[in-house]
Amino acid sequence: MGTIYGLGLGPGDPDLMTVRAARLLAAAGHVAFFRKAGRPGRARTIVEGLLPPTAVELAMEYPVTTEIPVDDPRYNALLSGFYARWAGQLGALVEAGRDVVVLCEGDPFFYGSFMHLHARLKDRCRVEVVPGITAMSAAWTASGQPVTWGDDVLTVLPGTLDEERLTAGIAQADAVVVMKLGCHLDRVRRAFDRAGRGDDAWLVQCATLPEQRVVPLRAYERRSTPYFSIVVAHGRGRRP
Amino acid sequence: MGTIYGLGLGPGDPDLMTVRAARLLAAAGHVAFFRKAGRPGRARTIVEGLLPPTAVELAMEYPVTTEIPVDDPRYNALLSGFYARWAGQLGALVEAGRDVVVLCEGDPFFYGSFMHLHARLKDRCRVEVVPGITAMSAAWTASGQPVTWGDDVLTVLPGTLDEERLTAGIAQADAVVVMKLGCHLDRVRRAFDRAGRGDDAWLVQCATLPEQRVVPLRAYERRSTPYFSIVVAHGRGRRP
Repeated sequence: MGTIYGLGLGPGDPDLMTVRAARLLAAAGHVAFFRKAGRPGRARTIVEGLLPPTAVELAMEYPVTTEIPVDDPRYNALLSGFYARWAGQLGALVEAGRDVVVLCEGDPFFYGSFMHLHARLKDRCRVEVVPGITAMSAAWTASGQPVTWGDDVLTVLPGTLDEERLTAGIAQADAVVVMKLGCHLDRVRRAFDRAGRGDDAWLVQCATLPEQRVVPLRAYERRSTPYFSIVVAHGRGRRP
Repeated sequence: MGTIYGLGLGPGDPDLMTVRAARLLAAAGHVAFFRKAGRPGRARTIVEGLLPPTAVELAMEYPVTTEIPVDDPRYNALLSGFYARWAGQLGALVEAGRDVVVLCEGDPFFYGSFMHLHARLKDRCRVEVVPGITAMSAAWTASGQPVTWGDDVLTVLPGTLDEERLTAGIAQADAVVVMKLGCHLDRVRRAFDRAGRGDDAWLVQCATLPEQRVVPLRAYERRSTPYFSIVVAHGRGRRP
């Protein structure tokens, strides 16, 4: 029996993957990664030039991403079948004695798709998870300011929540991170304003990559959907 | 002018530091780290055997840790003077052309002491921060379950908060992490019970180290103050 490795690659700069992830990559036999059809795949892009030439690559192409609303039952059915099929294929490889590395952006157990394979494979074979630097760590590092001080409370909110929940979540926290900004920028901005934190929030785009940008959320002018963007509002706790 | 590096070392296992941190360590000239007087220092312990033999080590010993309550004005005054003195010493080294690596457990901008040096040095010299894997990432990885799914909200609470704030914070989140457990275990346990999540919470001790333990929070029997412990309650969001 081989092992499935859920390999956290960190936020984008290959220099920010762990020593352990770099070693597992350099020795990888089978390498699986998610991607939108027709795209190279963000996780695969991070490891460009780092895989051994003999690695067998398995591109797991999502059957749907934004073409169907998340609350449409077809969305769930399509993804559920997709994860089941790939769990079957990877599980069969592992049962045949192969190790399979699954490339994961950020940290495998913090949002992300790997956990849907993990749930289907953990009772069938050996699955090891290597944690990675989260995109939010990269975002607050890029902002140049600590995110939590002393007894600050940090709340992480998906931008997909409705405006009431976003506003309440922001109001109750000291430090705030908003993930999955996607097409929700205007609602997130309104929620920060309503919670009285509109002046504290920063939008961080493509943290750790050459195209990194850090701008006040209020000043951000949208040209394209900033999917790889995170909003950070810093805590203001005890500072001796 | 040299550079101050705030070096995130991750949760404990040296294999989980980043490639960038490992490279900076291997070339380090001056290495500063915090420790409690009479102890080796947790960050210093992580890098044992990884520093060049020529490295000059600077142990920054806290003048106080738990001997005075945090809300006593003397606590703040002692720490403020301590950070100012060390910022002065490290700043002078950098102005003399040296690079100084400051060892940080976890991620330098997520709680932790480095930020108090950063605040005093950032306008005086070049300070670079290398993010690290947080202790909470290590804790949820050790628990063997993803922490956030779909649109889950994650809230990170310091165990130092009062019981009302802890209970409200737990009740309003999907996934919960409690940091800084220290001597607050009983209160944190009551707060999980009051918020109706007492059965979901896990105590993770010394994640990634050989002595790692994962136990249900309810079953945990305290023998010593579990300072390096984190409580995790997992989210239960959308799972195709």
